[in-house]
Amino acid sequence: MAEAGALRVGLMGYGTIGSGVFHLARKNAALLAESAGRPVEIVRALAKALDEVRPYPVDSHLITTDPREMLDDPGIDVFIEVMGGIEPARELSLKVLKSGRGLVTANKELVAMHGAELMKAAADSGAQYFFEAAVGGGIPIIRPLEESLGGDRILKVMGIMNGTTNFILSTMTSGGGTYADALEQAKQLGYAEADPRADVEGADAASKLAILSSIAFKVGVTSSQVYREGISLLRPEDIANAQELGYVIKLLGIAERDDGGGISARVHPTMVPVDHPLASVSGNFNAVFVIGEAVGELMFYGQGAGSMPTATAVLGDVINIANSIGGPAASGRAYWLNAGNMKPIDEVKSRFYMVLKVLDRPGVLAAISGVFGDHMVSLESVVQKGIGDRAQIVLITHEVQESNFGAAREGLEKLDSVLEIPSVIRVEQPSESVGEA
Amino acid sequence: MAEAGALRVGLMGYGTIGSGVFHLARKNAALLAESAGRPVEIVRALAKALDEVRPYPVDSHLITTDPREMLDDPGIDVFIEVMGGIEPARELSLKVLKSGRGLVTANKELVAMHGAELMKAAADSGAQYFFEAAVGGGIPIIRPLEESLGGDRILKVMGIMNGTTNFILSTMTSGGGTYADALEQAKQLGYAEADPRADVEGADAASKLAILSSIAFKVGVTSSQVYREGISLLRPEDIANAQELGYVIKLLGIAERDDGGGISARVHPTMVPVDHPLASVSGNFNAVFVIGEAVGELMFYGQGAGSMPTATAVLGDVINIANSIGGPAASGRAYWLNAGNMKPIDEVKSRFYMVLKVLDRPGVLAAISGVFGDHMVSLESVVQKGIGDRAQIVLITHEVQESNFGAAREGLEKLDSVLEIPSVIRVEQPSESVGEA
Repeated sequence: MAEAGALRVGLMGYGTIGSGVFHLARKNAALLAESAGRPVEIVRALAKALDEVRPYPVDSHLITTDPREMLDDPGIDVFIEVMGGIEPARELSLKVLKSGRGLVTANKELVAMHGAELMKAAADSGAQYFFEAAVGGGIPIIRPLEESLGGDRILKVMGIMNGTTNFILSTMTSGGGTYADALEQAKQLGYAEADPRADVEGADAASKLAILSSIAFKVGVTSSQVYREGISLLRPEDIANAQELGYVIKLLGIAERDDGGGISARVHPTMVPVDHPLASVSGNFNAVFVIGEAVGELMFYGQGAGSMPTATAVLGDVINIANSIGGPAASGRAYWLNAGNMKPIDEVKSRFYMVLKVLDRPGVLAAISGVFGDHMVSLESVVQKGIGDRAQIVLITHEVQESNFGAAREGLEKLDSVLEIPSVIRVEQPSESVGEA
Repeated sequence: MAEAGALRVGLMGYGTIGSGVFHLARKNAALLAESAGRPVEIVRALAKALDEVRPYPVDSHLITTDPREMLDDPGIDVFIEVMGGIEPARELSLKVLKSGRGLVTANKELVAMHGAELMKAAADSGAQYFFEAAVGGGIPIIRPLEESLGGDRILKVMGIMNGTTNFILSTMTSGGGTYADALEQAKQLGYAEADPRADVEGADAASKLAILSSIAFKVGVTSSQVYREGISLLRPEDIANAQELGYVIKLLGIAERDDGGGISARVHPTMVPVDHPLASVSGNFNAVFVIGEAVGELMFYGQGAGSMPTATAVLGDVINIANSIGGPAASGRAYWLNAGNMKPIDEVKSRFYMVLKVLDRPGVLAAISGVFGDHMVSLESVVQKGIGDRAQIVLITHEVQESNFGAAREGLEKLDSVLEIPSVIRVEQPSESVGEA
């Protein structure tokens, strides 16, 4: 039986994250009641099976495997969805939202793919819908962007949004090993899954960036609109070159809005200046860097995954709902139904790092410079490394439109003196804070 | 005339911050209306004088110099207090809160000194009271601590809470100059006031730490309960020694709760391990590092001062109030009336860096070690630097209770072979994130 006056919560998903939420809500019941203004009680839990393996102990008498039993229970005020995946999470979420009851989710794929449909259901019924745990695990970022920065014009959101890839890149940077070795180490430590593709190919980060872009720019951006490149082709040589040039390679999600309202959203390996606040974010930590027109530069840093950080974020959203039930729906995100004016990657401007394996003979540099010049690409630095068979040119361009850079690259590939272009990596500008003493 | 359905705001204080709030609210009116669910209009502004100097243009017909004209106006829904100082800000704030209307403030001194009285007035009438801008300028930190982390047990809050002193220390670190030179530079750049005492002696940081401690630990902590030491005695030699030992010196505010519920809150120069996330926060930036039992380590970073960052935070609070009017008061912080179980500084445990000028003769180190041993202080590292007249011992202790360290220091001062102890600085532990690749 729920305590009188308690906020009664139905928990959909009772695996690793779900049992963690249950554990934390019970352990910190007094604290939670103080923050929410009344007791918060999980009264029912929807599990895939009665005997699912769970890292935290659960109350087995709360478990049901029948979603209807939970959805049709008028005694449930608020739902938490931590099932993951698209179906049946989407269908159940829509049912909850259409009923007007509050919903909290950690499901980034779902929000990033079906955000517009879900927001419409919430706006139509006035249901509160929150998903702090979907981005950056325990790091408060959605609500700060939405409310605390709601009076500012956000220009850029950029961050390390996936702990697995950050662990792999940090390991390659500190130890000098290969991608394959670092991935193996991540698997052994439980930071990478047996099938790591969603992480290393950038799909996970793309979902998170789609959500952040939507909130920051007040349009609906889906994960399929995010350009992405993964980290599996990065070579130890590139990481060493980056260090020599004063950079660290990170897998960043970057979303920007230009003066004309065009939005670019992309996930790719990026060379970050070593004194940029994101450069020192190592191991499996996440961080989101935000630039607002009025507020300037902000960064939010913490554990981007794990059941306890995620459970903390989920409970924070439950507190927020508890504090606004009876008031106007805070989350009428009707803007999510408006498609953003998305810029294709070809129209994005970046600086580029490029390595060319070349024939070691006079005139090579002139030929290469000529091709760049023909495509309006100017060079910031050029270094020749090695001689003879191992001659390489390592260069960084000034900012250039991707299409021009791509055309220059094609031109370079046609030169007889260019044997191979093993690496091209985008390069981020220094932060404003750098150099201010 | 205010737009129909608009949230009508009375602005108390129309100087640098106030005119900035007015400017931003007008410039971003559409954005603000979207975030707040209705238009937000500043309908009246209380100024010290009609001809006050203001960095942003204002509507002079909104200005009044009579507080009663504003307080008695039933057409005002929400007030913003950016007058600064204690009186008349305190009296006016109490009147607003007693009337049950929402209040947003940037006034850290007031909240840190009279928080209990103000929270009681708010709780009694059900008024919303928010003060995001009081700590960390534009950095969202109060609301994330209060709501997003409301389900977690906060163990420690630690940060760079004053931009002036961080600029001075960053300048001393990068340039090797003296405190006096760096202060002069800060004044020239407008980062330090003509009378810099409130910043350099730690009073400003102590106010902010008192507020963060209250929110984090759910008791009332006042600025007078915060132990503090300033930065004016730091020597270039200490900064150089810190770098050699792998540390950066920062003025930190540190608040911790121990297992028995005892709270320590202190502001003092601190040696921070160079790979700690706080170490790379330079220039006039601020950052707050939080450790929660479930969420782990978090950090919030950004511009800690300036009229636009502060105005952003103020408008964020207005948005929050707009989104909860009609609902239950989210901010019933009755806990603020409970005095915290504050630990005196003598009971706090720290590691210490100490420099001793000594006579360069055999047996000195043995005598010094003996005194430390007598007071249960064990040493982590000891280095002798210089010879003859310039012989110095530079050491770092293991963690020790302040009272024991103080007794050892007294014992050392009595030794014939110890000529002077020019520096004692507390030393922070590495972050958990360090070493995770």
